[in-house]
Amino acid sequence: MLFLEDITVGQIFRSGRMQVDQERIKTFATEFDPQPFHLDETAAQDSIFRGLAASGWHTAAITMRLLVESEFKPADGIIGAGFDELRWPHPVRPGDELRVESEVLDARPSKSRPDQGLIKVRATTLNQDDEAVQVFIGNLVVPRRPG
Amino acid sequence: MLFLEDITVGQIFRSGRMQVDQERIKTFATEFDPQPFHLDETAAQDSIFRGLAASGWHTAAITMRLLVESEFKPADGIIGAGFDELRWPHPVRPGDELRVESEVLDARPSKSRPDQGLIKVRATTLNQDDEAVQVFIGNLVVPRRPG
Repeated sequence: MLFLEDITVGQIFRSGRMQVDQERIKTFATEFDPQPFHLDETAAQDSIFRGLAASGWHTAAITMRLLVESEFKPADGIIGAGFDELRWPHPVRPGDELRVESEVLDARPSKSRPDQGLIKVRATTLNQDDEAVQVFIGNLVVPRRPG
Repeated sequence: MLFLEDITVGQIFRSGRMQVDQERIKTFATEFDPQPFHLDETAAQDSIFRGLAASGWHTAAITMRLLVESEFKPADGIIGAGFDELRWPHPVRPGDELRVESEVLDARPSKSRPDQGLIKVRATTLNQDDEAVQVFIGNLVVPRRPG
């Protein structure tokens, strides 16, 4: 359980791995991002993705799962106050195995809430070839150690 | 079907509405964001959210569904090149009815790809009380009209 006082700039937290299932790519897209390149192999061949690719929001959701189960455990949970950046440099393909590396870029006490701190983290989601499939820079709220 | 030439700065596109289901908040969180404040009413009461709240990634995914089915229909689909900003100003509660308003902030031809354009859109997700529950500023790839 991490408090602001346990977190330092430059710290890196690693996650486990999760494989991306072809059927789940399609069912996630059916519910949330029903566009041909996320739903159907043949249609995807003719798209900008040149093959079936997971919705970026599916990648973002998988990343969150990996983060929640990673070494990075703020005492009150992972609570995003917002993002400065979110991008998907490479498509996620069926069978890809993803993991997340999070690096602390900034950590400081909140000015308005003396019991809270704010940290800035760059979370990079990598596939089995160590290609970045998602990068975000997020601002998170973390508690200060009571005392 | 929209091409770059059909899109002008200041244009606003509106979506339909979608109600957020309490059970889906919990099952989405079980799969992708298993933290107490997204899973259990009692635990959520004691959290920063003061009650059950949807994962921000669930809100983002619902927003994408609303966008895909909205008036905003680029000819090749909605393809995000990245985001300059993403934040969740208010929690999403069970039963909330969400809709999206997208405003075009910038639209210009790509320098590197003469058949493509780049547009910048601010998509605001609003609840039934017109409170913004999510705001993102996204950069999208759109095709130019063949010609």
